[in-house]
Amino acid sequence: MPMYKGGYWGKVLVVNLTEGAFREEDLPPEIAKNFIGGVGIGVKYLFDKVKAGTDPLGPDNKLIFAVGPYTGTAVPCANRMAVVSKSPLTGTIAASFAGGYFPVELKKAGYDALIVEGKADKPTYLWIRNGEFRLRDARSVWGTQTSDCQQIIKDELNDQNARVACIGPAGENLSKMACIINERRAAGRKGLGAVMGSKNLKAIAVRGTNTVRVASEDKFKATRSEMIKAMKESFVLYEAFAQAGTPLGVEHMSLMGIFPIKNWTATAELTIEETLGLKVQDSRKVGRTHCYGCPVGCSQLHLAKGTPYGGILAEGPEYETFYSFGGQTGVDNIDSIIAADRLADELGLDTISAGVAIGFAMELYEMGILAPAHTNGLELRFGNHEAMVKLLQMIAFREGLGDVLSDGVKVAAQRIGKGSEKYAMHVKGLELPAYDVRGAKAHGLNYATSYTGADHNRGYAFQEIMGIPIPFSANGLSVEKKGELTKWNQDAQTALCDCTAICSFILPMALMPIALSNTSALLEAVTGNTYTEDDILKVGERINNLARMFNAREGFTRKDDSLPERLMTEPMKGGPCDGSLISQKELDLMLDEYYTARGWDLETGIPTKEKLADLGLEYVTE
Amino acid sequence: MPMYKGGYWGKVLVVNLTEGAFREEDLPPEIAKNFIGGVGIGVKYLFDKVKAGTDPLGPDNKLIFAVGPYTGTAVPCANRMAVVSKSPLTGTIAASFAGGYFPVELKKAGYDALIVEGKADKPTYLWIRNGEFRLRDARSVWGTQTSDCQQIIKDELNDQNARVACIGPAGENLSKMACIINERRAAGRKGLGAVMGSKNLKAIAVRGTNTVRVASEDKFKATRSEMIKAMKESFVLYEAFAQAGTPLGVEHMSLMGIFPIKNWTATAELTIEETLGLKVQDSRKVGRTHCYGCPVGCSQLHLAKGTPYGGILAEGPEYETFYSFGGQTGVDNIDSIIAADRLADELGLDTISAGVAIGFAMELYEMGILAPAHTNGLELRFGNHEAMVKLLQMIAFREGLGDVLSDGVKVAAQRIGKGSEKYAMHVKGLELPAYDVRGAKAHGLNYATSYTGADHNRGYAFQEIMGIPIPFSANGLSVEKKGELTKWNQDAQTALCDCTAICSFILPMALMPIALSNTSALLEAVTGNTYTEDDILKVGERINNLARMFNAREGFTRKDDSLPERLMTEPMKGGPCDGSLISQKELDLMLDEYYTARGWDLETGIPTKEKLADLGLEYVTE
Repeated sequence: MPMYKGGYWGKVLVVNLTEGAFREEDLPPEIAKNFIGGVGIGVKYLFDKVKAGTDPLGPDNKLIFAVGPYTGTAVPCANRMAVVSKSPLTGTIAASFAGGYFPVELKKAGYDALIVEGKADKPTYLWIRNGEFRLRDARSVWGTQTSDCQQIIKDELNDQNARVACIGPAGENLSKMACIINERRAAGRKGLGAVMGSKNLKAIAVRGTNTVRVASEDKFKATRSEMIKAMKESFVLYEAFAQAGTPLGVEHMSLMGIFPIKNWTATAELTIEETLGLKVQDSRKVGRTHCYGCPVGCSQLHLAKGTPYGGILAEGPEYETFYSFGGQTGVDNIDSIIAADRLADELGLDTISAGVAIGFAMELYEMGILAPAHTNGLELRFGNHEAMVKLLQMIAFREGLGDVLSDGVKVAAQRIGKGSEKYAMHVKGLELPAYDVRGAKAHGLNYATSYTGADHNRGYAFQEIMGIPIPFSANGLSVEKKGELTKWNQDAQTALCDCTAICSFILPMALMPIALSNTSALLEAVTGNTYTEDDILKVGERINNLARMFNAREGFTRKDDSLPERLMTEPMKGGPCDGSLISQKELDLMLDEYYTARGWDLETGIPTKEKLADLGLEYVTE
Repeated sequence: MPMYKGGYWGKVLVVNLTEGAFREEDLPPEIAKNFIGGVGIGVKYLFDKVKAGTDPLGPDNKLIFAVGPYTGTAVPCANRMAVVSKSPLTGTIAASFAGGYFPVELKKAGYDALIVEGKADKPTYLWIRNGEFRLRDARSVWGTQTSDCQQIIKDELNDQNARVACIGPAGENLSKMACIINERRAAGRKGLGAVMGSKNLKAIAVRGTNTVRVASEDKFKATRSEMIKAMKESFVLYEAFAQAGTPLGVEHMSLMGIFPIKNWTATAELTIEETLGLKVQDSRKVGRTHCYGCPVGCSQLHLAKGTPYGGILAEGPEYETFYSFGGQTGVDNIDSIIAADRLADELGLDTISAGVAIGFAMELYEMGILAPAHTNGLELRFGNHEAMVKLLQMIAFREGLGDVLSDGVKVAAQRIGKGSEKYAMHVKGLELPAYDVRGAKAHGLNYATSYTGADHNRGYAFQEIMGIPIPFSANGLSVEKKGELTKWNQDAQTALCDCTAICSFILPMALMPIALSNTSALLEAVTGNTYTEDDILKVGERINNLARMFNAREGFTRKDDSLPERLMTEPMKGGPCDGSLISQKELDLMLDEYYTARGWDLETGIPTKEKLADLGLEYVTE
């Protein structure tokens, strides 16, 4: 075993699939200090080790799994991991996150991060057990759905306590909306499953039994208690959120008028809200589950009723999936949404991108741009749940129209032509999540500038969406001061959640008022490294700048920091945000302010040398 | 822990769900000696404890799980269990068998048998761990498919090494063709899943870590070696059978002309044989699995390709399922057969009864007895694989025509009327398995007389079907000496497999020539009890007589030992058995000979007092 240093083993496992070779690298203490863990380690390694112009689906791309310094300790809600790579969907950095049980096993097996490089010459899976590792033939699981894959591998390894992260058929078929699944959790977005598939890597199984210690037990107890106290004091976390989970958002966003439906041609009406958010909780919930070490357990188990979906269970649908398979497709059959959610998990597809792509295709069909000849005869009208489920399968298997959609709406629109680009709801190729940013403009600026494309999780504007006034309050319909706010949101979320691996739900719902001070104290207690509150935000800023430089090296500039044409030209209809849009002028105003706040060049949107030097990133040239 | 006696713990766990009470009963040594284990213990307890006229789906019925004396020892292929109850499908005794991993856990937990009685007042599951037991709330898994149910229960118990036997939606909905599933194995036939559902018992989870010892290590080693040597010498077991499993039967039975298709209106042609038996092996196999302690591993993992079934994995389809979802429905789409097999396992439906019922409905539809108005619009023609899959779901959820079929073809025909009884292929309510007995008449006599209805596994006529001349050779088209042969087959299979829990595949394929002597030696080595070869056959005879008395007590007599009208009036068409049928006269001739061989009354088919006394069953009156 590597020697354990509070928070870190100091070891990164690198697996070269081309050579079938393993090596352990030291995790330099300065990387631990300056990038903390999780996405920080992922972005740092990706920038340093993946050259500009690398084919995301080629052997030179790398797939990085990185846990946080708290993972495996008694810090609640910290047993998560970042998965980082170059995205085949956007060409930018991809960063997704997953909880469950796999991350803590990876940490307990002795590693802070796992880097997968090269390409196996045949279907392969990786087996890591307490510092031992080997590659195994994956022919018996190639083609399988994700839950079968996990079970068969556990059986093969004769270890029912192993945890498995794997891809489904979508990842094998290089769908650019393929995800990675462990247990029933997903590192969902940006096509990370296709990267794994391109390497012929079906799965990673891991089992760890080492103890993860902290640098100072005394400091740890006090700061952990403070955190748990703040969680207990939250009036939503253990009640509404634990009992109903993210589907609560359907009601909340509908009331705010920012729940988009039917490929963003409308916002939710009361009927949709009633159908989805409330009904599912009353009539389909059978239980809930926890990630490892989580006292909340927000993940709801829903069970479909009757035929043809009866008996199908989903860990979900989460809020975003009600948006994508419900809102975007106009489907109000709850059981079909539950079934599609499960099917997406089994096939290994990102529910957001897949549902948005299906909604996009439905709008084109309704408009006559697509006809039955393009859809294998599917009547692809809004609301047709059977067509939705079938098209989902076609996406995973790249059949017919499914093949076109499998590359995401940006590329699909280019292939379909006939003006369909106008209806493709994405930023930098990443399909839009479930917030109509015409009514939440800082969130819109975040979509436009996030280093991963339209990503609600890189700088969630909880000031607009939840009314939490930190660092200041904000009105979603206004563009005022949104540049500064978005910088803060991105840096704070990066440092406080994406690096520490703390669950991004408990941050706004419970921890926000104490987050910086508590994180400072907790990081010292766990790792022995000291951070001021400013240091912590600076870690977030450092990572956002380094990620921006990765994207700049790939050719992304200010021109790419945009929003779909529809959001900039079509005003919202009805509800509290009636008439709102984000004009090019408003976006430019927000971008100017954002780049200024970030110290980036106003013309190119690229970090200045001074800013990079300020962040200790002098080595990052251009 | 109970004290261990070679082969037995001497303990039966009785769970009364009405009272939420448990008690441990001693397994009397004379029951162990005279009934050996497995089905012997099951039939003995069922006869003694379930009164005549008991409602199979009422609280007074009992559900008995019993392992064999070898289970948990190093005897290969013996980690199986019998599940015994009164059948809701037939009203006779139900006995089904399953391997996998659950049975050995039950044995290692300290029990030779588990008896479930009464009815829980809400959905419940049972958790047994090394002599500790409790009932738990099953609301979180009620309604779930069987693989989800198993995983969720393991998660709830925080024990990934627990093994779970459970029912799916079909069992909850009291489908009389519902089965019990552990891992991906089924105690499949006769509606045992409905019995479990009627008790509000969703699942039984069990974990055992005790060591199972044998009475004499020295004798054990020698006899076990003899058994393993015979297995290794078999030219089919480790080659063809391990590599292809029971689907080999499709080719074999097609060549023999006894693979029935389209509700027994025809026998297989070359195209069917090519489509199913051979193609699946070449193109869909991804791996194979073993039951605990099995060196063969006959169970093939098949994976469906393309849409709409792509990515669906089945442990199977076994031979019988190719017959039911392929042959009987006329479906030649392999992927749909794989998908239907998996769906049946997930919903907890017996594939044989379900497929035969669908084939029956298809024939009625083709004839116009059923119309779209009866089928929810399904085009229920032979070969329509999408209709097959949908109807399967409707059976599990008892929707529309599915509700009618869910009670089995016998009752369905009574409800549908219009002469449909003529097309209902069953004996005593149990749908016919995959052997056209017009070309294998001892097997037909077995269907007619088996104590569980048309059951291929109670006295498999391997002489006719496989050409194994033990105790003498037999021609399938002839009725000569079939009474004596069927008695021998029933008694031998009961003793050698159903009581010892030895897998019924390795008996004809490897062990048959040494089976009686080896079993005699092995029983002595494991249990310390001594048996001559005649003693062993007499155990089988004892159980067949006691089971017959159970059925007689329920009103079954000679008149019920019959075959479907079609087999007795319509000659086979084409192939080696062209023109053959089993006339009433032939059946009567075989029955007379069979009753005579058995010492049963010729008029009633009921065991005589002399015969019962001879078998030590004096206490069984009338």
